[in-house]
Amino acid sequence: MSGDVRVQDAGEFALIRRLQEALPGGVRHNARVFHGIGDDAAIWQPAESHQSIITTDTLVEGTHFRLDWTDWHSLGHKMLAVNLSDIAAMGADPVLATITLGLTGDERVADLEDLYRGAVSLAEPHGVVIAGGDIVRTNGPMIISVTVIGEGDRLLTRDGAQPGDRIVVSGTLGASAAGLRLLEHAGGRAGATTAELLIAAHLRPNPRITLGKVLAERGATAAMDLSDGLLGDLPKILQASGVSATVDARHVPVAPALRALFPEEWRDLALRGGEDYELLATIPADRCDDVQKAAGDIGATLADIGEITPCNDGGPLLTIIDADGQAREAEFGAFDHFG
Amino acid sequence: MSGDVRVQDAGEFALIRRLQEALPGGVRHNARVFHGIGDDAAIWQPAESHQSIITTDTLVEGTHFRLDWTDWHSLGHKMLAVNLSDIAAMGADPVLATITLGLTGDERVADLEDLYRGAVSLAEPHGVVIAGGDIVRTNGPMIISVTVIGEGDRLLTRDGAQPGDRIVVSGTLGASAAGLRLLEHAGGRAGATTAELLIAAHLRPNPRITLGKVLAERGATAAMDLSDGLLGDLPKILQASGVSATVDARHVPVAPALRALFPEEWRDLALRGGEDYELLATIPADRCDDVQKAAGDIGATLADIGEITPCNDGGPLLTIIDADGQAREAEFGAFDHFG
Repeated sequence: MSGDVRVQDAGEFALIRRLQEALPGGVRHNARVFHGIGDDAAIWQPAESHQSIITTDTLVEGTHFRLDWTDWHSLGHKMLAVNLSDIAAMGADPVLATITLGLTGDERVADLEDLYRGAVSLAEPHGVVIAGGDIVRTNGPMIISVTVIGEGDRLLTRDGAQPGDRIVVSGTLGASAAGLRLLEHAGGRAGATTAELLIAAHLRPNPRITLGKVLAERGATAAMDLSDGLLGDLPKILQASGVSATVDARHVPVAPALRALFPEEWRDLALRGGEDYELLATIPADRCDDVQKAAGDIGATLADIGEITPCNDGGPLLTIIDADGQAREAEFGAFDHFG
Repeated sequence: MSGDVRVQDAGEFALIRRLQEALPGGVRHNARVFHGIGDDAAIWQPAESHQSIITTDTLVEGTHFRLDWTDWHSLGHKMLAVNLSDIAAMGADPVLATITLGLTGDERVADLEDLYRGAVSLAEPHGVVIAGGDIVRTNGPMIISVTVIGEGDRLLTRDGAQPGDRIVVSGTLGASAAGLRLLEHAGGRAGATTAELLIAAHLRPNPRITLGKVLAERGATAAMDLSDGLLGDLPKILQASGVSATVDARHVPVAPALRALFPEEWRDLALRGGEDYELLATIPADRCDDVQKAAGDIGATLADIGEITPCNDGGPLLTIIDADGQAREAEFGAFDHFG
């Protein structure tokens, strides 16, 4: 089959076969996951005593990605990464993924193979089996829907934050939003190395699977991954846990590239920019040093950015200490996709 | 919120709240499924020693359903039914479902509540928790993607059929395809009771959950649900199991309404019509009576329509005994959605 063959010419069954062949053996099945692609369902053996989790995220062309801004391999990486990030935020191990594609038929089979290879590049190191899904025809924008199953014996949720807990965040914030900004301005043709770092953060985020397990094992009280920005996501923990918080914006970690390229906006991008897929967690104050050290042992960083406080009378509040040391109240509410 | 409010006016978060409120308590969570809607992931406790299964099906407006042919409640029923049918075919128990909606924003919130109530009408009697999902914006056709988790301790797959096994099928075939035909011709306004029976078979298929478990417990060797028609689906068992088969078309069960309304085409609709969601299974000959009796005890029927035979030299073959007693070879190959 040549590189220019399109889905409508290859047909559904040849496409499924080609995509299956893009998966190395260990990503097709393993000792615990069997009967995947080709059957209507995948079967796996859950680990004894563990709890299971399911997470699903859908990307729509035009809404969540643009094919002129991303290559197919990066898109395959990202579609799995955003789901693995939800697994990481719960301190769980990913087990398997299903991938559903809504296609017009005009797509090149070779591009979809690249999409799968991008998913494999993340699935293989994390021991994730790609165990089937669905391919459907649509006459609208391309749809990618990924579901991941994970499991663990001590799962982190959003509702356990306690007054006195420290608030920590992994890595640096704002790089993905800055990368998106650069793509918008440069139309995907940004050249400088600094810019490319930010664009890579947007196109190929890395789920913090190992760090999530460290957080769960070392006694974090709540966690989530940052997809809607710090000021969009932290309120979800506050509301679920029934607590307030104070965050010192001066302690929010920011990549040097972000400061260099966005001298005016870097603080705002770090506080509000979405899709960083870093972990946000709360940790009892007396364990914070221990958890930060354990994170360092696996090559991760956890910046202490603030404190959980008792709930205010009118409900949870988020107080931000500004760059000039002034306290102000942050407005709640994540981005409304229909607003 | 009045009945005419649209998604773009209500906003994403009010929509999620309204859909959650459409779920009765037992469909939101139960003793084993918790942390569903509102979190990024749902958590459940798998039954000890059981295997888990995942199945996912996506419906695209224009391709898989037409909003002028179905009411929203029926659509909600069907989106869950097609997934539960895959669970039934494996002899498993459904545990939870996630629902992803791709919306333009122009949909009425009240219609989406009806969609959810239709899903509830099937989830509630089967003990299925609707545990979250995703709502995304699209500027194309409406997308509904449902994933169901199930479990069981003796799961049926497609690859266990043995020469000598009897081939059985539940209920009657062809009604759904006939209902679709009536919708195409009558534009959704068919009035006669007989026609309505067929249309209901198309719009609100019933997954054979209990029958699937009977088949698994009583020693069926392979099973699947009929979504692409008998002649489209049986070859999948033959290929997976490496066997051939002979089916007597005169024994394929057909609803009286189908014969009455389609005097010319009823045989073809019964053999080739899709979306019946009845179960097709193979059973060792010496157990067939026992299984048919056990099916009768739960109010189901299993018609004996043929026999599994050894694989032919050139690969699996499907031989059909025609209405006039003549044997002919059936062509393989299910419907190609991009063909």
